[in-house]
Amino acid sequence: MLSTNVDYESLLSELGRGLRPNAIRKLTKLLGSREVISLAAGAPSIDTLPLAQLSEIAARVIREQGRSALQYGPTRGQAALVEAVAGILNSRGIAGATPAEVVMTSGSQQGLDLISRVLIDRGDVVIVELPSYIGGIIALRNGGADLVGVQQDRDGLVIGELESTLRRLRSDGRRVKCIYTIPNFQNPSGVTLSMERRRQLVEVAEEFDLLIIEDDAYFDLYFDEEARLTPLAALCPERVFYLGTFSKVLAPGLRTAYVCAPERLSARIELAKEGADLSSSVLDQAIVMEAIREGLIENRLAELRRFYEVRRVAMLEALERFAPAGSGWTKPAGGFFILMHLAEGIDAGQRLERAIANGVAYVPGESFFVDGTGQNTLRLAYSKESPEKIADGVDRMCRVLAE
Amino acid sequence: MLSTNVDYESLLSELGRGLRPNAIRKLTKLLGSREVISLAAGAPSIDTLPLAQLSEIAARVIREQGRSALQYGPTRGQAALVEAVAGILNSRGIAGATPAEVVMTSGSQQGLDLISRVLIDRGDVVIVELPSYIGGIIALRNGGADLVGVQQDRDGLVIGELESTLRRLRSDGRRVKCIYTIPNFQNPSGVTLSMERRRQLVEVAEEFDLLIIEDDAYFDLYFDEEARLTPLAALCPERVFYLGTFSKVLAPGLRTAYVCAPERLSARIELAKEGADLSSSVLDQAIVMEAIREGLIENRLAELRRFYEVRRVAMLEALERFAPAGSGWTKPAGGFFILMHLAEGIDAGQRLERAIANGVAYVPGESFFVDGTGQNTLRLAYSKESPEKIADGVDRMCRVLAE
Repeated sequence: MLSTNVDYESLLSELGRGLRPNAIRKLTKLLGSREVISLAAGAPSIDTLPLAQLSEIAARVIREQGRSALQYGPTRGQAALVEAVAGILNSRGIAGATPAEVVMTSGSQQGLDLISRVLIDRGDVVIVELPSYIGGIIALRNGGADLVGVQQDRDGLVIGELESTLRRLRSDGRRVKCIYTIPNFQNPSGVTLSMERRRQLVEVAEEFDLLIIEDDAYFDLYFDEEARLTPLAALCPERVFYLGTFSKVLAPGLRTAYVCAPERLSARIELAKEGADLSSSVLDQAIVMEAIREGLIENRLAELRRFYEVRRVAMLEALERFAPAGSGWTKPAGGFFILMHLAEGIDAGQRLERAIANGVAYVPGESFFVDGTGQNTLRLAYSKESPEKIADGVDRMCRVLAE
Repeated sequence: MLSTNVDYESLLSELGRGLRPNAIRKLTKLLGSREVISLAAGAPSIDTLPLAQLSEIAARVIREQGRSALQYGPTRGQAALVEAVAGILNSRGIAGATPAEVVMTSGSQQGLDLISRVLIDRGDVVIVELPSYIGGIIALRNGGADLVGVQQDRDGLVIGELESTLRRLRSDGRRVKCIYTIPNFQNPSGVTLSMERRRQLVEVAEEFDLLIIEDDAYFDLYFDEEARLTPLAALCPERVFYLGTFSKVLAPGLRTAYVCAPERLSARIELAKEGADLSSSVLDQAIVMEAIREGLIENRLAELRRFYEVRRVAMLEALERFAPAGSGWTKPAGGFFILMHLAEGIDAGQRLERAIANGVAYVPGESFFVDGTGQNTLRLAYSKESPEKIADGVDRMCRVLAE
């Protein structure tokens, strides 16, 4: 009865055939079990995880609310948490955000995936930043989007280029659906979209009848009050999918994030989510809700900001000291990432294996650039390692880059 | 700057525009906050949730393994759990199942969604049972599948009709990709696919070069050793996506399930999952792993089977006593569900509001039938209520159905 040769390729969908491992996945393979200083992982430091408190909260949540927290839950999310998120959104300036606009998701990755599915038909164009977040790029491409990149400078997306790109696409008869942006301390560039640019971006969205996907995973992790900028969703709620997450400020393993969008859109997200997984982990949501209620998240933010700021300083200082001539780098006002530019002709991807052999890992920038550029860039994360290890890692890396 | 009238419909994708609330969702709306006896909810009874043990396990897992259990985890799932699942699969007769074939998912719903995405292009045909699981229908339709139904009898899918349907579709030039089946104690019919039919089904899949999606959520919940049948995946591993879950035997709020498929296919599932949500809840996985390690799941199975069997008996007895003339029902050998057939011309959907007013809810069968039939059927779940309430609920329901 055994057939030895099923032709799986012929049975896959276009999407199924087209899926490819990304740079970070390849890196993980390359690393294997080697222990290196990781300037690659864009994950919160495990030293920031409040284990004792979360252990106590989890036990209590199951004991006291287990009959709901361990049962199937509503697709949109646990009612109390959805309401708390609406409160968080209001506190960020998104005045009037209501629970009816919020859908809880399994990480912002799921939010991006669901948006992609309810918005994109094959061949629709989505504008993304050069560079942009790999997970966003994957989710949008999986939905069938053609991604068109627009440059960032130190103030974020360059609006003039955005406008000329949109005009060109329009005259080419292309359907542009939305703009995907990470306005705060961007992954991977660390750049922040300035307040002026935010206003301009919203005007462009109005003019060209576009929606905006605002991926604001790092909002709370500013190092200076001046870097706490009003979200696009506050300027133009009717055109924005706003994505926030508890991954960076509490624990990524809890997979608890949210999308806020006009009701007409959030209702579609909810229905798409029902087909995608019925609901996110109900226990994770109950734990996050309890952490909010007790002030565990709010009370830690100042400390978290300080934690990452110290590491940013360590990385910037090490770059000043060790970076090879001809290179440059961004100076983030928050978040986890610095984008480094090498002299033209130096390929960061080609140097990676040697860097790993030398005890340090980073993410080559190429896969963050949807236009095929970025070979001479790399993403450095200061979120995971200690300041000492960051300095050591940058030193080791720069030796390889300078060769 | 506010635009008051964004035309959202024009910005949605074909999928986004087409999403519709399903029967169970409509029922929830209809119910509102009314307390009724629910023969509708296909959820495990909260009385089966081992709250004390899971509370203790969760606290310990976070305390002792929190640095991994609260951090980002591998897309495929926590290594120890993936390995434990391979062991479970082997114990079910799927000899030689390896960790490389397993991907952990957020409920089987996500497994269905990911399979749909890597397999289905718009217009591909998938064969489903009449009736079939709503969540499976939604996931396959969202992927773009045309669903074609094949009747079940008391031994499950009718193979003769399956073959003639496949021949007709082939001569019509249609591309049939796979067959979706719930072989054990089917949702919603309660029917089991007999061993002989399993062998025949696999032969048909070979002959027509099809894959099989085997959704085996209820495998462990047989009421009699004779109802513990060998999975299709054991008969034909190279053509089967096998889906299993911890929702029914531990806790659905933990959203921990798995797909097992030939490596060439599971690798695609893994990549699709990466774009969909990076990974399932890492904490949930760690809790489930610990529950497996301690024998918490295995040790409860006999008691769980007995728990649901008592309720099945209560429902069957109440149906014998109260069911209106001209109706019939299935006699499940396990699981949660009975499908009831009313006399021709009686529409179960039309009676629902009156039933709710009379203190009882069920799910009208129509939306389980992809061919538009089933108006005179309804799904009854004996999983949620006590035997006394089941009897009372069936009584109340039958009064409305007999009117």
